[in-house]
Amino acid sequence: MWNKNQFTQLLKITYPIIQAPMAGSTTPQLVAAVSNAGGLGSLGAALMSPEQTRAAIKEIRTLTNKPFSVNLFIPEPVKNISTDTIITTNKAYDVFRKDLNVQESSVVATNTAPDFAGQIAVVIEEQVPIFSFTFGLLPTEIIAKLKHHKIKIIGTATTMREAMMLERSGVDAIVAQGSEAGGHRGSAFDTNIQDALIGTMALVPQIVDVVKLPVIASGGIMDGRAIVAAFALGAQAAQLGTAFLTCPEASIKAPHRQALLNSTDESTRLTTAFTGKTARSIKNRMLLEIAAQNISPLPFNLHRAMLGDIYAAATQQQKADFLPLWAGQASHLCRDLPVQELMEKLVNETEESLQKFK
Amino acid sequence: MWNKNQFTQLLKITYPIIQAPMAGSTTPQLVAAVSNAGGLGSLGAALMSPEQTRAAIKEIRTLTNKPFSVNLFIPEPVKNISTDTIITTNKAYDVFRKDLNVQESSVVATNTAPDFAGQIAVVIEEQVPIFSFTFGLLPTEIIAKLKHHKIKIIGTATTMREAMMLERSGVDAIVAQGSEAGGHRGSAFDTNIQDALIGTMALVPQIVDVVKLPVIASGGIMDGRAIVAAFALGAQAAQLGTAFLTCPEASIKAPHRQALLNSTDESTRLTTAFTGKTARSIKNRMLLEIAAQNISPLPFNLHRAMLGDIYAAATQQQKADFLPLWAGQASHLCRDLPVQELMEKLVNETEESLQKFK
Repeated sequence: MWNKNQFTQLLKITYPIIQAPMAGSTTPQLVAAVSNAGGLGSLGAALMSPEQTRAAIKEIRTLTNKPFSVNLFIPEPVKNISTDTIITTNKAYDVFRKDLNVQESSVVATNTAPDFAGQIAVVIEEQVPIFSFTFGLLPTEIIAKLKHHKIKIIGTATTMREAMMLERSGVDAIVAQGSEAGGHRGSAFDTNIQDALIGTMALVPQIVDVVKLPVIASGGIMDGRAIVAAFALGAQAAQLGTAFLTCPEASIKAPHRQALLNSTDESTRLTTAFTGKTARSIKNRMLLEIAAQNISPLPFNLHRAMLGDIYAAATQQQKADFLPLWAGQASHLCRDLPVQELMEKLVNETEESLQKFK
Repeated sequence: MWNKNQFTQLLKITYPIIQAPMAGSTTPQLVAAVSNAGGLGSLGAALMSPEQTRAAIKEIRTLTNKPFSVNLFIPEPVKNISTDTIITTNKAYDVFRKDLNVQESSVVATNTAPDFAGQIAVVIEEQVPIFSFTFGLLPTEIIAKLKHHKIKIIGTATTMREAMMLERSGVDAIVAQGSEAGGHRGSAFDTNIQDALIGTMALVPQIVDVVKLPVIASGGIMDGRAIVAAFALGAQAAQLGTAFLTCPEASIKAPHRQALLNSTDESTRLTTAFTGKTARSIKNRMLLEIAAQNISPLPFNLHRAMLGDIYAAATQQQKADFLPLWAGQASHLCRDLPVQELMEKLVNETEESLQKFK
């Protein structure tokens, strides 16, 4: 049985299929629907306040009694950025504000880092069954506290070295995230980003060989064929992000959803234009025009705060050209289905693909 | 049986395992050993003269009576490059010449494009069983001539669009080459290179869905786990390059071989430093120092010709820092085994991996 392994037993889930924690797009409805269908729903809580996180967890619990996970970003070290730098960087985006009839920005954005300590406190107080994190290593004392509360811990690696560091840190399972993955790369916390763009096919077996923990494959996985491929490579579970983004339960903006459904394999590119942090998005005007200039991005939270007015206006005006359109490299295979139906398809496709080998 | 399919029947081979045609590294001994072991050996003849190609084919035939393939590069359109540009570009490499005690280059390299028409004529005259090509589409009249001589044709795609163009052009099978692949990307003949860096996990199922022809997965495949993953994704065969580079039958330079055996998943990067054409190599001094400058590469053949003196000296002096060290993203998994043993391992691993699913 493909779905009975160390990982599904550890997490007490029926199918080793994880809905990736996509901050900003994962509603309690999405998370609960995935868990109710036997997979692992994940709340991407990284950009939420502790209070919002608590409310979302409580809502998930009204919708399911199955295990689910909450995901946070490891905070970046704070960098001092001069006001002049912020103003100069921001000016590069004024051409987009003009098109959106947004006033040219005179306000200097300030760093609005999420309250990580507060978020973690909520995860522990609410006794979330599974906690996952991206962009780094969790401090030892937090690992100890989570373990004390019997919360299972999943870290994210984009290289063998990161996977070994995560194993040593005490996590329970490791996501091996290949370069195909959409949105922000899970990690590269210890590595030059260029050297951590390793395709899933190459990354998973290399990580499987150097850790004892269960490995979760992610990056480019959209259907049962790729789930079986992930198992063949030695993974015990598959994590799918983009595949769940077009479900009606996800909270993505209509132009983003449309861009995903219309995408091809050549649609995406890595960019720092939207958040200052390297992420994979479908190409649009903002991505291409910022790439053509040579603009150094600001730190993640500051960069996002700087562009808040643009994203609000673009959302209101439904303009795909001025919004991040996160997508993995197989977004062309995304489907316009509610979670329950998508999960059934994924399970059936996996079983059919395995049948071929019998 | 995993090894009985449309592709193995078409090519009359025992196992759907292809040794990738790596120009410059594939000896008649390597090609014949792979074919004798039941796979498909491939002569990377792109940089050979017609006479050298003929001699190699004749030698392969003294070593095996099994099918094998010969691979060529589709010629690039000729660009006029000014002497000044060549001199300026070349000067950037004088620092490496100095370290190698090579006289600073006063000779202006000239374009030494291979004789493609002559090479193709040899392929046809010698009735090579299988012809494969990379970097573009084959002209209609050549396709017709090959078909007339019952030579099977394999093209190489890095995107869905390229795969569909190849299918329309009349080839018999298509290599879907993911971004993990080492050396020169097979294709991107119709696409911005940035948009054709699609990981194997994402690329193969998307191509399988849009063509009727057998698809050969390549990029990051090093062992039986990845061969099974390729089949799960819908491929009918797997093409491995880096895995065969460390076989004693391959003609790679000792420092290159050592770099492969010592590599990790973070070792490689894409570069134009070595040949002017984007290719994946293990990082070394030349790669990093040229990347740090902002040098526009020359066209492929010209760029290679320009650096001929450096490569000759570096080979003689066994200096890995001044040689292209082609490698895929899973080169860490390469093995120090003769072809026959490696092929046995690949077949056994594939069968073991499939056993897991039974």
